[in-house]
Amino acid sequence: MTHQELRRALRVEPENGLVDLGDYSTDRVHVGPKSKKKSQHRLDAMADGLAELQERLYAAATDGDHRSVLLVLQGMDTAGKGGVIDHVVGLVGPSGTQIRAFKQPTAAERKHNFLWRIRKALPAAGMIGVFDRSHYEDVLVPVVHDQLDDAERRHRYKLINDFEAELSESGTTLIKCFLNVSYDRQRDRLLARLDDPTKYWKFNEGDIDSRRQWPDYRWAYAEALAATSTEIAPWYAVPSDHKWYRNWAVATLLLDTLRDLDPQYPLTDLDLPRLRKRLAPPN
Amino acid sequence: MTHQELRRALRVEPENGLVDLGDYSTDRVHVGPKSKKKSQHRLDAMADGLAELQERLYAAATDGDHRSVLLVLQGMDTAGKGGVIDHVVGLVGPSGTQIRAFKQPTAAERKHNFLWRIRKALPAAGMIGVFDRSHYEDVLVPVVHDQLDDAERRHRYKLINDFEAELSESGTTLIKCFLNVSYDRQRDRLLARLDDPTKYWKFNEGDIDSRRQWPDYRWAYAEALAATSTEIAPWYAVPSDHKWYRNWAVATLLLDTLRDLDPQYPLTDLDLPRLRKRLAPPN
Repeated sequence: MTHQELRRALRVEPENGLVDLGDYSTDRVHVGPKSKKKSQHRLDAMADGLAELQERLYAAATDGDHRSVLLVLQGMDTAGKGGVIDHVVGLVGPSGTQIRAFKQPTAAERKHNFLWRIRKALPAAGMIGVFDRSHYEDVLVPVVHDQLDDAERRHRYKLINDFEAELSESGTTLIKCFLNVSYDRQRDRLLARLDDPTKYWKFNEGDIDSRRQWPDYRWAYAEALAATSTEIAPWYAVPSDHKWYRNWAVATLLLDTLRDLDPQYPLTDLDLPRLRKRLAPPN
Repeated sequence: MTHQELRRALRVEPENGLVDLGDYSTDRVHVGPKSKKKSQHRLDAMADGLAELQERLYAAATDGDHRSVLLVLQGMDTAGKGGVIDHVVGLVGPSGTQIRAFKQPTAAERKHNFLWRIRKALPAAGMIGVFDRSHYEDVLVPVVHDQLDDAERRHRYKLINDFEAELSESGTTLIKCFLNVSYDRQRDRLLARLDDPTKYWKFNEGDIDSRRQWPDYRWAYAEALAATSTEIAPWYAVPSDHKWYRNWAVATLLLDTLRDLDPQYPLTDLDLPRLRKRLAPPN
């Protein structure tokens, strides 16, 4: 199994409290498929395992097991959060997943602490929750717009780490993925939207404005990852210039996590003969 | 296309205000695949169409189109609500669907009108909502337990019809499926759960008790379907003794509905040359 190796290779490990995103490939790492064709085969091969392990997680929850999984997806525009949801999360089966997308907070949401809306969206026991953007937007965006001073940033990172520690203690395993796309590949993908009328609706000129702030976003991500890649909730920097590699990598992280959890169908004390008799035809 | 034909064949049409469930097959009707093998092929062939039409529905919503779809799944235990979700709804892609399961109402939910929790779970514009059980439980269960007199039942049916008319007016197309399984096939499926330790967790002795009330449930369903199979929100009685036929039929109803809606990618007035120039490399 190359799984543990992938986790090691992608895991964000701050050095002296700092992260240099330049250390993390947007292309691929030494583990995993080397071509699109091979990746599709390997992705398909994970589908049954993902579905079965989620069913076991759910079955265990019906018997009091409180565990759940939360996949957090962050990344610049075009990095592929939606693609991961359709092509990786889609392998699990919809009845086992809870997907929540976080847009700009509404007026009502802004009246609360930034974790308020997040807490309401947490996965139930037995489920795989997926966050399409997350509480990390509430540090990244204001940091880029220079709205938080050092002390405020540190305070938010602490709140996030405390929150994630609490989640972990209550049985939720976090898989935090930074979908790492390069500046050039983002341009290619944005240009592609302008070449295809069925993709015009995805185009938002604000994406170009955010792109102009690329260095600021990279800085904000580097600081946030450094501050919150903890032992219990590490970040993974997922190379995302190739959709096939990105999807394979996230699926592998998810499958690997579920295998570690190793949920079991509950032992039950069904009185089989009596139940079978009750179900026998009346005549 | 046999689609319109399927809708006609499965549609519940009360006669003189009454429905006899005996008129509706649990096996199959004259439309559609005749074997499991053929059904799988035909189901797979619908996947791209379902995903594309949902994407168009979503794209249109970004441009002010308020339409959505709501698939309501009802049926006796083992009829296959979960199976439809995994094998039909799963074809759409998770980012385009909102699945809600309704269990016994909680104490907080019981303090409100029975439609309160339903309203909070309606799909957003552009989405396909799926109800695994629904507001219909709030007539079926109390009717079986003899907790609603004639006037109260009529009142609830009226509330439901008004609610669904309101949904329809605000752009939500309902597809209400009664997954119609036979008494014998239910026994087979319950017995199968007793033969497979990985299915024990699904077994609930309460299901046998409900099965003992089979005639009461059939009566309650017949009355509810008769009262609420309206022009704008008809019921479909989906033969559900064969999983492959059931899945094909629900997928066909869903695809057919999306084709009728015929959502379009929005026309946009992007200034392509200017945007391309903004995206060009800086040097």
